[in-house]
Amino acid sequence: MSELRQNLATKEWVIIATERAKRPEEFKSRKEKKELPAFNPACPFCPGNESNTPGETLRISDDGGWKVRSFPNKFAALSKEGERRRKIEGIERWLNGVGIHEVIAETPLHNLTTALLPVENIELILGAYRARYLDILNDPRIELIIIFKNHGEAAGTSLEHPHSQLIATPVVPTQVRNRLEDAMRYFDDTGECVYCKMMAEEIKAKERILIETEHFISFVLYAALSPFHTWILPKRHTSSFGDITDEEIKDMAGILKNVLARFYYGLDDPNFNYVIRSAPTGGGVKEYFHWYLSIVPRLTKTAGFELGSGMFINISMPEDNAKFLREVRIPK
Amino acid sequence: MSELRQNLATKEWVIIATERAKRPEEFKSRKEKKELPAFNPACPFCPGNESNTPGETLRISDDGGWKVRSFPNKFAALSKEGERRRKIEGIERWLNGVGIHEVIAETPLHNLTTALLPVENIELILGAYRARYLDILNDPRIELIIIFKNHGEAAGTSLEHPHSQLIATPVVPTQVRNRLEDAMRYFDDTGECVYCKMMAEEIKAKERILIETEHFISFVLYAALSPFHTWILPKRHTSSFGDITDEEIKDMAGILKNVLARFYYGLDDPNFNYVIRSAPTGGGVKEYFHWYLSIVPRLTKTAGFELGSGMFINISMPEDNAKFLREVRIPK
Repeated sequence: MSELRQNLATKEWVIIATERAKRPEEFKSRKEKKELPAFNPACPFCPGNESNTPGETLRISDDGGWKVRSFPNKFAALSKEGERRRKIEGIERWLNGVGIHEVIAETPLHNLTTALLPVENIELILGAYRARYLDILNDPRIELIIIFKNHGEAAGTSLEHPHSQLIATPVVPTQVRNRLEDAMRYFDDTGECVYCKMMAEEIKAKERILIETEHFISFVLYAALSPFHTWILPKRHTSSFGDITDEEIKDMAGILKNVLARFYYGLDDPNFNYVIRSAPTGGGVKEYFHWYLSIVPRLTKTAGFELGSGMFINISMPEDNAKFLREVRIPK
Repeated sequence: MSELRQNLATKEWVIIATERAKRPEEFKSRKEKKELPAFNPACPFCPGNESNTPGETLRISDDGGWKVRSFPNKFAALSKEGERRRKIEGIERWLNGVGIHEVIAETPLHNLTTALLPVENIELILGAYRARYLDILNDPRIELIIIFKNHGEAAGTSLEHPHSQLIATPVVPTQVRNRLEDAMRYFDDTGECVYCKMMAEEIKAKERILIETEHFISFVLYAALSPFHTWILPKRHTSSFGDITDEEIKDMAGILKNVLARFYYGLDDPNFNYVIRSAPTGGGVKEYFHWYLSIVPRLTKTAGFELGSGMFINISMPEDNAKFLREVRIPK
């Protein structure tokens, strides 16, 4: 019989459907292996083509070249210029599209991916995330900063060059507001951060843990919305990704590479998204919310049921997923 | 410049990104046309193969054969048997997977789709939905009944034979709970059903309306989450799909066929999902909620931003989508 599980923090229910369950190895990506060149002259993010991506917002230099760069997205969903204007008229609740939409080119090399990058490089990427986050944090028009990565076509990217994106929105999205409210209720009821509680319980239960480092812990979610849905959570309670220290960045680079290498080698380089979920801007550290990074491999499709209920069906067992990923052998 | 719009009822914000906007005709499906046979001996839903789908829950007969049938899903996400049991232990919020998961075979013919079916046939399908809905409504283990259709591979189906599904869950999904609360707040503030209000405003604004019939109205949403995101809303206020009358079913069959024919001819038979959103079971008619049918063509992909914020980016203008669909010529 299948079962329903609820994520203690987000309150989302998922159906773990064992009737159609697959074994972890059945989720291996079947995409054709394509040998990519280290440099592609037609790629807008490759070195030499920087003039295609003007308005650089950050550059980590490397004799003559760069190691990490950020710049405005050419097809930005939101525009940097202008004041935030709101209109409420009949059913029209409207805001002009002010905000920030940037690309972070993660390395000059066209053919790498996080699992294969040197850990020092990942440290620079996370440092770039923090620098851009902190820079934007004080923009009074911005309510939320979302840093994310789309890897592979099924994850919504068309560009091969390793890159992440940042979108800063002039509103708090409804889903985020609802989650904050639920976390606040939990705090009111118990005096605890619900994410700290989840972390403590996962450490006790052990069976879904992938890896624990000095400052972070990574586990497949008890109520994983889809196969291999994984979080990386900082042990130190803070609601804002902007608070991450240098030491934590170094540690996080290691755990992020390790977890993504387990996906890369265990599931044959699957398409995936990751996203950093941080509290809305303003107001200092919130005791009831905790930032984290969520990784969602794109191995299945959503359909009418998910659209019509917001509830997911996961055709794999989180504990089996975790065991499988723990046993992946990562080449040195 | 792009703009942000909020759905008055669901409170969801969407970015209408005009920088990357496409014209409506650019969304035409590019899938290869495949001539399907009217009968496929290997199809489990085709006549003659009824023994592959045992436990029939409904049959609308037609001399010797059937016109519409429903039966348990062979790979059911939830199981019909057993009591609802709940476990709360540490972070584990758990329920056994009781519930109902059925398939509604919409016609014996393998190669049809709603846009091409005779309207009398669609009337029978909607009648079957209502019959199954009302039958399940009194099951005390059930909290919500979701009726949906997945059309085409990108919409999550692998079976060609025209069919819909019904899933009845033993919990109210979080997203549904949040929407009900927001609708209740609106009612408290204004004394009006927010969906009735939206309908009245859309009728006044005209520009997003696709078609209006005696009992229903269909429009592209002001804050459409994706291109051509459309609702069909009953004019009579009622929160439960189970309340639909025979006369309304007849009228709804016509409007559903008409709207889906606009998609079929205008966008070359796109993949789509539709879902009937109805209030949770029990407690009679709720004055603050209103049932409706939502149609989501699957023309774009979601990525890390949507995952990380619950907010969507729509690369088309709802008013342009509506104009395009209004102008589609449906062959007689």
